[in-house]
Amino acid sequence: MSRADCRENALERLCTLLGDRCSREAAVREARAGDASWHSGPPPDVVVFPESTEEVSAIAAICHDARMTIIPRGTGTAVEGGVIATSGGVCLDLCRMNRITAIHPQDRDAVVEAGVTRKQLNAALLEQQTGLFFPVDPGADASLGGMAATCASGSAAVGYGTMRDNVLGLTAVLADGRILRTGTRAGKSSAGYDLTRLLVGSEGTLAIITEVTLRLSRLPRAIVAGTCAFEQEDRAVAAVLDVLAAGVRPVRMELLDAVQMAAVNAYSQLGCRESPTLFFELHGGPAAVAEQAEEVERIFSACGGFEVQHATEQAERDRLWQARHDAYFASLALRPGGAGYVTDVCVPVSRLAECVRRAREHLQHTNIPCPLFGHVGDGNFHVVFVIDPHSAAELAEVRGIQARIVADALALDGTCSGEHGIGLGKLDALEQQYGETLSAMRDIRRALDPLGLLNPGKVLRMPE
Amino acid sequence: MSRADCRENALERLCTLLGDRCSREAAVREARAGDASWHSGPPPDVVVFPESTEEVSAIAAICHDARMTIIPRGTGTAVEGGVIATSGGVCLDLCRMNRITAIHPQDRDAVVEAGVTRKQLNAALLEQQTGLFFPVDPGADASLGGMAATCASGSAAVGYGTMRDNVLGLTAVLADGRILRTGTRAGKSSAGYDLTRLLVGSEGTLAIITEVTLRLSRLPRAIVAGTCAFEQEDRAVAAVLDVLAAGVRPVRMELLDAVQMAAVNAYSQLGCRESPTLFFELHGGPAAVAEQAEEVERIFSACGGFEVQHATEQAERDRLWQARHDAYFASLALRPGGAGYVTDVCVPVSRLAECVRRAREHLQHTNIPCPLFGHVGDGNFHVVFVIDPHSAAELAEVRGIQARIVADALALDGTCSGEHGIGLGKLDALEQQYGETLSAMRDIRRALDPLGLLNPGKVLRMPE
Repeated sequence: MSRADCRENALERLCTLLGDRCSREAAVREARAGDASWHSGPPPDVVVFPESTEEVSAIAAICHDARMTIIPRGTGTAVEGGVIATSGGVCLDLCRMNRITAIHPQDRDAVVEAGVTRKQLNAALLEQQTGLFFPVDPGADASLGGMAATCASGSAAVGYGTMRDNVLGLTAVLADGRILRTGTRAGKSSAGYDLTRLLVGSEGTLAIITEVTLRLSRLPRAIVAGTCAFEQEDRAVAAVLDVLAAGVRPVRMELLDAVQMAAVNAYSQLGCRESPTLFFELHGGPAAVAEQAEEVERIFSACGGFEVQHATEQAERDRLWQARHDAYFASLALRPGGAGYVTDVCVPVSRLAECVRRAREHLQHTNIPCPLFGHVGDGNFHVVFVIDPHSAAELAEVRGIQARIVADALALDGTCSGEHGIGLGKLDALEQQYGETLSAMRDIRRALDPLGLLNPGKVLRMPE
Repeated sequence: MSRADCRENALERLCTLLGDRCSREAAVREARAGDASWHSGPPPDVVVFPESTEEVSAIAAICHDARMTIIPRGTGTAVEGGVIATSGGVCLDLCRMNRITAIHPQDRDAVVEAGVTRKQLNAALLEQQTGLFFPVDPGADASLGGMAATCASGSAAVGYGTMRDNVLGLTAVLADGRILRTGTRAGKSSAGYDLTRLLVGSEGTLAIITEVTLRLSRLPRAIVAGTCAFEQEDRAVAAVLDVLAAGVRPVRMELLDAVQMAAVNAYSQLGCRESPTLFFELHGGPAAVAEQAEEVERIFSACGGFEVQHATEQAERDRLWQARHDAYFASLALRPGGAGYVTDVCVPVSRLAECVRRAREHLQHTNIPCPLFGHVGDGNFHVVFVIDPHSAAELAEVRGIQARIVADALALDGTCSGEHGIGLGKLDALEQQYGETLSAMRDIRRALDPLGLLNPGKVLRMPE
């Protein structure tokens, strides 16, 4: 059978398996050509909508036989091009795997299919009055499978950790259709290799995550949230370090620069002072939270902060954090028709001030809008360049600046990606970061997917 | 060159490289034939004492050329036979890699060579007045490289997590001598595959860990510790669940059964009531700790606990926890000449009572001393069978009981090893736990060590 015949035969088998959940319609394919960033590519050849792990396994086996590539996809809210079908292939859309399989309140865990979104899970936890929530909050209402695949984190990571810390186990399908069940619901385990953490952050290149077992957290008894504006950015960054050094454990600690504050004011009608601003939140018992809030205010004031604006009601807090989480869209609104190119470095907190200072030097000569903001409580920040997606010159300019910001972060003992992953956008950066260590990553990828069928072109360049 | 000549040649090269840090003396080899348990085996053919990652790399390359196996070794305090040279080979003793490379107080991390022990690190952190400590506490003064290799945890894991949660990065050497540098000192990272967590718990079968970057914790401002005896074991277990359900976050929460309490009294002169007893510790701010301590006392009392005995002074607490950590040796002292065979299952806390109840059924007919104790705060418990190491009948009996306890734990959504690892002792149990998923672990091992030279026979049976 010729390669084309073999492919047609496989597509027929997919249609037989899935019926109208296998689509070659242009609109369906084109809706899955990109992600939330400037990255774009050709649409996939076909889109499949499995409803169970067993169906994913059957799809993988069919694709394996025909040497067709598979690009797993959640909500498409990531920004490094990780879901783009660079060489066509089968887009495996997990949105119909959206059942909450089990919630175990006593053990504080939940088992969900990969397409369940974090808001969907939190709504169910609230409705069932469990007193629990899932704390990892990347802003977007992303699918939990996608969040596991990219090791998402977001604003609450400084308090509750990242997906790495909050995924207890996975069900996943290998390129040849084998089904893996990793981890356990036990609180800890030393049983064999930690495939769970290997797959968390592997961006669909080692296996297709179909089910996730998540650690839940207790809803805090008390919450204090607020904002504090500063005249100078470096003083705001210094305040973050002082807060951490004082033993305060913020749950969120975010910096938005003056440009970002203006963008957020315009987009979310926040009415804040348009100068560098820290957003923070504390969780705990009432006494502990009140004590920590006082300490935070004292430190902010000592670092030249203006008066802290408290968000005491839940509705106010929701509005505040929604505005923070919409910062990316607020940035895009600075330039109609623009597309977002986001940097995402993370450094040890002691090096954060230096990294931000150097980034400012790299940014001072560009005319492209480029607000800076991020999860400074764990040393992570972003610059969103709002580029003209049709301008090769702008893309080249931004690539140059990103390369300099990444080089700084690596020189300061940091990482080229705090939370967005590698996708297509950071292939060079990962090579700079890990050098020879990448050879072991390639060995592992080749071992689990010898034909190179899972999300090709992402994370690592694989020699033919 | 014949195989024997090739081997002699390699041994000469090792001697040339290391001088008197390469030993074939019987006493040196025999001292490294076993671990702290009943497991035993032949001594290694040679023992090498590298002093740097580069030396480990050179040793690995020499062994790779000659197809000689390498068994990495820390303090030898583990209990599943993971350091036994079942087929001879080179024992790579990391005790001379004992330098603390760096301590970064602002970032709360430390970089240490693999042979540094946890007590050595904590002494340095105290001496340098950092206000920080390394919280993972398996009892033994184990090497931090060995603790990473086995994913150790121990009594403080319920509060501070395991090695998986507290290792930020590693330097490690592959079987062919390649040097890997995984992770970063940044608070979080989404850059490529998480080789750090893959190597944590891999027991020296994927790479030789030579350096570890560790997350440190702040010394608590207040500590409350104590013990509470119960008439009935099941009520003590119920009290643990109630404490967790009440939102109390104990740092340690341990159960010792009546036999274990008698053993501990005899070994450590503790003078406690010889009935099932919970040991606990709380860390935090003074108000929060006092509030939680009251809640704990109320719950213990409601579950039929006797009066809580507080350990208010540091010296008292040290004595209490030393006694707890010596529970294994206290068990061995029940039978002079006996050797320890330890079970180590962990289940979701909601299933702990059931798992302990079933274990009691399996234990009721044996005459072998078998105290039960463990880290019940995270659903982890041990039974130490003190066996006659020369009795095949006793070994067979204990193997049977262990198999039943493991089967129960797996049926209750748990794991066959909470913290001791697989080594030689749990090969069958791991197969029962993971089934087909083991094939992916084998693929990874084969990819990183195609010749099967690193710690052969441990964790996974590898088909020829």
